[in-house]
Order: sequence, then C-alpha cells, then structure tokens
Amino acid sequence: MTKSNPGNFFEDFQVGGQLIHATPLTLSSGDISLYRALTGSRHALYSSEPFATGAGFDRLPIDPLLAFHVVFGKTVPDISLNAVANLGYADGRFLAPVYPGDTLLAVSDVIGKKENSNGKTGVVYVRTRGENQHGETVLSYVRWVMVNKRDQSAPAPEPAVPELPDAVDPKDLPIPSYATWHDALAGSRDLYGAYEIGEKIDHVDGMTVEEAEHQIATRLYQNTAKVHFDAHAQKESRFGKRLIYGGVVISIARALSFNGLANAAQMIAINAGTHAGPLFAGDTVYAWSEVLDKAELSDTVGALRLRLVAAKDQSCENFPLRGEDGKYAPGVLLDFDYWAAIPR
Amino acid sequence: MTKSNPGNFFEDFQVGGQLIHATPLTLSSGDISLYRALTGSRHALYSSEPFATGAGFDRLPIDPLLAFHVVFGKTVPDISLNAVANLGYADGRFLAPVYPGDTLLAVSDVIGKKENSNGKTGVVYVRTRGENQHGETVLSYVRWVMVNKRDQSAPAPEPAVPELPDAVDPKDLPIPSYATWHDALAGSRDLYGAYEIGEKIDHVDGMTVEEAEHQIATRLYQNTAKVHFDAHAQKESRFGKRLIYGGVVISIARALSFNGLANAAQMIAINAGTHAGPLFAGDTVYAWSEVLDKAELSDTVGALRLRLVAAKDQSCENFPLRGEDGKYAPGVLLDFDYWAAIPR
Amino acid sequence: MTKSNPGNFFEDFQVGGQLIHATPLTLSSGDISLYRALTGSRHALYSSEPFATGAGFDRLPIDPLLAFHVVFGKTVPDISLNAVANLGYADGRFLAPVYPGDTLLAVSDVIGKKENSNGKTGVVYVRTRGENQHGETVLSYVRWVMVNKRDQSAPAPEPAVPELPDAVDPKDLPIPSYATWHDALAGSRDLYGAYEIGEKIDHVDGMTVEEAEHQIATRLYQNTAKVHFDAHAQKESRFGKRLIYGGVVISIARALSFNGLANAAQMIAINAGTHAGPLFAGDTVYAWSEVLDKAELSDTVGALRLRLVAAKDQSCENFPLRGEDGKYAPGVLLDFDYWAAIPR
Repeated sequence: MTKSNPGNFFEDFQVGGQLIHATPLTLSSGDISLYRALTGSRHALYSSEPFATGAGFDRLPIDPLLAFHVVFGKTVPDISLNAVANLGYADGRFLAPVYPGDTLLAVSDVIGKKENSNGKTGVVYVRTRGENQHGETVLSYVRWVMVNKRDQSAPAPEPAVPELPDAVDPKDLPIPSYATWHDALAGSRDLYGAYEIGEKIDHVDGMTVEEAEHQIATRLYQNTAKVHFDAHAQKESRFGKRLIYGGVVISIARALSFNGLANAAQMIAINAGTHAGPLFAGDTVYAWSEVLDKAELSDTVGALRLRLVAAKDQSCENFPLRGEDGKYAPGVLLDFDYWAAIPR
Repeated sequence: MTKSNPGNFFEDFQVGGQLIHATPLTLSSGDISLYRALTGSRHALYSSEPFATGAGFDRLPIDPLLAFHVVFGKTVPDISLNAVANLGYADGRFLAPVYPGDTLLAVSDVIGKKENSNGKTGVVYVRTRGENQHGETVLSYVRWVMVNKRDQSAPAPEPAVPELPDAVDPKDLPIPSYATWHDALAGSRDLYGAYEIGEKIDHVDGMTVEEAEHQIATRLYQNTAKVHFDAHAQKESRFGKRLIYGGVVISIARALSFNGLANAAQMIAINAGTHAGPLFAGDTVYAWSEVLDKAELSDTVGALRLRLVAAKDQSCENFPLRGEDGKYAPGVLLDFDYWAAIPR
Repeated sequence: MTKSNPGNFFEDFQVGGQLIHATPLTLSSGDISLYRALTGSRHALYSSEPFATGAGFDRLPIDPLLAFHVVFGKTVPDISLNAVANLGYADGRFLAPVYPGDTLLAVSDVIGKKENSNGKTGVVYVRTRGENQHGETVLSYVRWVMVNKRDQSAPAPEPAVPELPDAVDPKDLPIPSYATWHDALAGSRDLYGAYEIGEKIDHVDGMTVEEAEHQIATRLYQNTAKVHFDAHAQKESRFGKRLIYGGVVISIARALSFNGLANAAQMIAINAGTHAGPLFAGDTVYAWSEVLDKAELSDTVGALRLRLVAAKDQSCENFPLRGEDGKYAPGVLLDFDYWAAIPR
C-alpha cells in the first residue's frame, strides 16, 4: 500500500459523493503582494485599502481570482491528478469577500459522470465550494474534467450529466453596493454607460511568461498538478515541456484587461471558460474583451458580461478567436465568459 | 474611441498642469518580503523591527527605494508610456517614513517642457509627489523624460526649463534622530567618521538578474512600461529583447552597497541619476561607491553624499565610470547620486 | 583597509569565541507566502491558521525550515564566505515556535577546529542559535564547514573536535501537544501507527528548479554566498555556473515529502545532513524517505526519525542512495536525517 496519493480515477467518483479537500489555506497580505507581482493585477479595488473601504469593503479584499485559484488548487489532488483535460467551468459565483486572515477550505460534490465512447476515459462533473473559517461559502463553481479509468474493462456507469446554465442569470448575481467610487483613481472615466453590447476592446499590452513565474504562482495556489512543475517527466509527454496552469492565463489576461476595463474591477460570476490552447514559458500573452451583455443590478451598480480572450505571440487588434472552420484559431489560449460589476 | 490608454504625447503636457495618477497602492509586509527576496536588500533598519524601533521608527518601515519605485510606477501610464528615454532625476527627498498598511498615491505637476531640434520629440519635466492616506507627502522628486510628439508638424511650444539643484543642499535634508544604533547588528563598525570625501568602495559581490526576477519586481511596483514585459514586441525593437527597468538596477546596486556601507542604511535624498546603459536578463550587476560629500545633520547623525555606480559583467575593483572620451565606459549601467543618513 | 567584508579565514576562528551575526530579520506573513510559493510547502500546520490553533499554536506559525534557513543565512558572511564546503549538521533542535512578527537573531559559538593535512584548509565547528526578540532560543544546531586558510604557512592549531551525537536522543526532543488534529484536512489518514521502521516511501512528484526561484529563495533568507548569485564569476569556477543553495534542496525535498508524510508536519530535530551532490537550475528534484526510527513522545504524539533523500532527474521508485562502492550514487543531492512529530 503506497502512502503517496495515487489520485482518483473515473471509477472512484460517485455521483452524490462529497470530497473535503486537504490543507485549508490562510491567505494574507503576502498573497496579495505576490498575486500582484506575478500577474500585473492593478485594479484599484484590490490595490488600495482606502479605495476598497470607500467602495464598501471592510478592508483591502483579496482578488476573487486569487481565491478561485486557491480553491481550485485544493481540488487537484482529489479530482484532476489523473485528468486528461480540464473541459469547462459553469455557474461560478463569488458570494462573499475574502480578506487577509481568512482561511479557505474547498469542498466538492460530485454531480455527474459519463464514460467516453473509447472506454478509456470519462467526464466527471463537480460543484466545488470555497468556504471561509466561519463556514460561509465565498465562491462556488461547477467544473468538469476528463479523467482516466483505472481499469479500461470496467463497465460504463449510467450516464448522469447535470443541467448547467449557459451563463449566470443576472437576477442571481451578487450585488455589490459601491458607496463611493473614484473613477480617476481607478484609472478610467468609462463606467457602465460607456460600454455597449457587442463592443470589442483590444487590451494592447503583452506579457511574456517565464518558467519561474508560472511555477511560483501555481505553488502559491498550492496546485500540485505534475504537468506544471516536472520538466524531466514532461520530456516524455505530448508537448515535451511543462504546461502552464490555465489559471495563470486567466489571471494575466484579466490583469491585461485593466487597460480598457479599469472600472470593471470586481469579478462576480464565471459563466464559462475554455482553455483553447496551451501556454508555454517564453510565450507572450495578449488579450481582448467583448461586451456580451449588460445588466443593471441596482441604482448605482451594473454588470458587464464579458468574453475575455487570450492569444499568444500575436496582437489582439483584430480580435482573434475562431477560424473559418469554427475551431479556435492558432495561438488562442483562452475563451472565458464572466460577469464583472461596474459603477453606473 | 479606444478605451485602452494611449498614453500622453509631448503636446498633451501643459506646464502648470497636474496629473493624479491612477490606482493608489497599499503596501504591506508582503511587499517588504518580496523586495528583500528580489533585490537582496539587508540593511538592518529595513529588516529588523526591534532595530528600527530602537532607531526611532514606529514600526518596521518600508525601504525608501521601494516606496520610490511604487510612486514612479504609478506615473508611467501618464508620463512615460510614449517616452523614448528617462533622462534624469533631481531634487528627490524622502520626507516621511512609509509603513506597512500605508497607501501611496502619486501626483505629478508638469514643471517644464522643451521641444527637441529634430521636431519629433521633446523633453517634459515633472515634479512627482507620493502622498500617504493622510495626505502627507512622503517623497518628492523631479524627473525629466524624452517623449514622442503625436504630430511632428505641430509647432514647438515656448521652451520652459526649470532650474534644478545639482544636489539637495544639506540644510534641506530630512534629519533622522537615531535613538539607539547597534553597529554590530547593522553589519559594520564604520560610522560617519570612518568615511572620507573622495573615498571609493568596491562592493565586491555580483548579482545576476533573470527575466522572471525583473518582471516580478516591476509588476510589484505596478510599473506597466511595455519594454520590460513583452518579449514578442521587443523582437522588433532596438535591443531585440526586454529591457530591465532602471529601478531594478538602482535597488540591486544599493543592496550590493551594503557590503561597505552597512550603516548608511537610510536614503534621505536623490541628487541625480543617469541610466548609462541597458541591463538585460542574464547580465550580472556589480557596484561601487564614491563618497562625494559629507554633512553633519545633528549631534548624532551625519549624511554621506554617495555616488553609486553599477556596471555589468565586470569587477568594480578599478571603479569603472567614464572612458577617455568622457562618455560612460562600456557596461556602466547607472550613475546615481544620493544622500544617506549614517550615525556619527 | 577595505570596508567590504572579506569574511573570516580558518585562522580567524577561536575555539570558545562567539560571533553575533549581523542584520536580525523580522519575519512576516509575506515570508510565509513566499516560502510556500517557492518550495511547494503544503503541510496544514503551516498553511491554515485554524488548523494550527486547533493543534495548540497561538497563531499560524512559520515553517521551522524557513526559520532555519534565515538563521543559517545570517551566519554566511561570518562563517562560510570563504568556505570550500558545507560538511555537515548535527544536534539540531527546534525549541520554540516562530510566528509572523518575530525577529530572529543568529549567534554562533565556535566549538572546534582542525586543520586539514594539506595545510591549505581546515574544518571549523560552530553551534548556532536563533534567538527571538525575547532572547528565547527558537532553534539550535551544530554545523561544520571546510574553510580556507588565509596564510598557508601558518602553523596548524591544536585540533579540537567536539563530540556530536549521531542523532538527537528521543528524550531530548521537544514534545508538541496537539490538542486537535484533523487528518483528513491534513491530507492523509496515516498517523504514527501506520509507519514502520525500515519502511521506504517514494514521494513520486518532481520539481524543476529555475535560476530565478533559487535566487529569490536564497535572498529571502538573506544568505549572501556568492556561488548562488554571480553567474559571471561562476564561469571561472569548478562547475562553470551558479550552484543552488543546499537549503533550497532541503525545503523542496521536504515539501515533496508531503505526498506520503502529510501528518508528519512538524520538524522537531535535525540529526544529520549531507549535501551529496550539486543542484543546478533546470534540474528536477525528486525525493524519497525512509523511516529510521520511531519514538512515543506522549500519549497523543509520536516522532518519526526520517531519512530524506533527494535525487535529480531520476525517479525515486528504486530509492537511489549509494552505489556498490559505498559512495553516493550519481544524481543524489541530499541525505538528510531528522525527527518529525506526528499524532498517534
């Protein structure tokens, strides 16, 4: 009996079962500094305590994506250690602020599974919650992954695929109430009314990613997936080298999107997300956004539904996404769909 | 109308105008740890809380250069996004300590501009202040940059060049009062009296800089200048690769100078500074100092005016600076002139 | 007289003498975040404040190895700046928890010295203590290093070699009292009783180390040994490149050992340690452990004496250690012997 963790295989997941993931993590101002230094994040709401308290927070909060990566990282040893691919996200909601000193615990419910026709792999659906030390759910999302079977001759289970929304309904969005908001300090005069559905924004800047950077970030989140860290073993793999954690791409693209979306600082929901292509060290990430929808949440706050696209080693001035064949165009890394709150 | 920031061009700066720079930043002990880990800083005054409180500080303070880089970083999107070169610094003063939890806001006054004879560029002079959350100015400096014109056919404005001091006058220096100072714990027995005007000190050690290191540092300061981060775009540039932020050179050279100047821990003024040559990843930084002047500030504290020179891939035992033609010698990176307080 | 530190040579060490090392360091939650991000550390006791307070700590403590590296780093300018090799450790004990806000001061007593037969070098033995701001010793260990003589014609001193224990006697171990311990949250159900003397555990995962990572870590500890940082000077050295600080290897191997030893979270003593081979950037670290001994410390807590072996660029499934000639096998990096507490 090995004492090291072999991870779970397709057969090990039971619909209705629950996984309490190991090593809760206490976040601190050290994590805020590192997240900024590793991603280039510069939204005022997560940079300046006076700005954040003016906007109604108790203290300087932790960027929702940092909390998301930490919760996600906790699930890796139980859910995706033997995963072939991370297939998608749905119905993600950021329900309560996370502050330095808060401890995040991750809990996943298995909500579906379906064997693939090849008999070698299957898809597992989980709803993961991040809880703080008071037992309050701070974020929740559905994720599905393709997982290897341990025994390819094992019979296929009854398929159980959950119904998932294409996007979080605006009436289900958490509603921030920004008491005060200094747009000049936030970096832009463009508020809710300045954005139109269908509008596309090139975020202009590029960010080259180094091996040390993505490894430091991924360990910060205590994500242990081998593909990100072990160059020796990766020599034998499909790519021949380390693959960068998809969450690194999300955070860098989101940080780049400051340049054009400075007031859309607070991510409040994740509708969907596809990691369309791999990122490797030495590649340069660019990003663009499209306004997919708008919603008025209160008299003072609205939400933009945004498609955030990242592509590598190419300008985003022509908004790369799909080729004529409908497949993602070469170099497209990420197609991410989320809601961000923005003052009206 | 693009929503991403195009930066300001020469024509956009009006003498007498003021720029309030976006995204104030709250600093924390996480920034202290990262600054130490990225630069090798080890002055006791900024490493040990008991040492700092013994010397008269309320708590462990933030290294003045870290505060400077953060304030400087804030100004980049407004002042130097379209800059051709960072030409100089003058009259920099560190006026109040910065502690973890303090929030820095950067404000710049345009104090001069002068078009270059080529009609394509001009020089802009700004005085930038860093303010804390109480509205107190913690540091202030003048900087001038060469900026592109948007329209080369636009007429040249009336030249307005501010008068700037060659060095901060000793009577204008902030005067620390070190209640107690343990020189053994600080790392050297050499106090004010041990240094002579004209004395040169080789700091001996070398520090090789990696891409990940300078990028992490520059993002820590929320400095967004493209040349530091975008390897893809830099392929087409003059150097063909990423250029390291000059502030990284200042901080590494300053950290190296611990070895010979351990008690000259507190930078209190910046007299001048020239980035004499470019630093790239893989290069190794060495440094030497020259005592340019001395001043007695109080019965217990003096100040050394120091020239700090950094050079790459060469020992500083022969104090490289200028060639016979008067130009900076090959490999010289930095010629920086500052005042540091030191116990008498 | 140079003002930069020339380091001590063999002749400078006097048995019975004491060295108070410069620049005490205040640790913070920023150091906890960086240590996690640089090593992959994920023991619940050092990750989660509720877990740690449940186990009897006042707050989230600092990993004993982080405290060890900081104390060790302080000793480098005085002890090993002119060292040829770090030969061994003995009788290391972790005597009190270190918390964010604590300041560590390092003090070393010279307890032995013996010239080598070549007349060029000698071995110096020191006992180093790390003290907190209350003067309490938080850790203590013996280390011996081979140091160059300044003057090879100087006569050899009378040899004085201290008697050192092969291992810390279980009756001398500090005894933690874990009030509560959630093994599921810690990441494994395997407690004291699950481990048998002689058992070997392959920790499976690999971690590739980049130049930026080891440099950032080693500066975090304020360890200034030139071999880790100066690629330019290292071109002329034995290896032709930067050598990674041995403490980086210890911490990565220890972090990898989570996968198989999740409940053996608290290192309480260091029995011995050999850096068997050099690690360079780009190499991948793997690790395995052997249970050398067991001891019951109280009704609720036991200790495992563990051999932690790290090897590079090779799986540890066959537990690489020594060749038939009795020498360390190629690629073996570390042979480290320690006690860890574990709930019964």
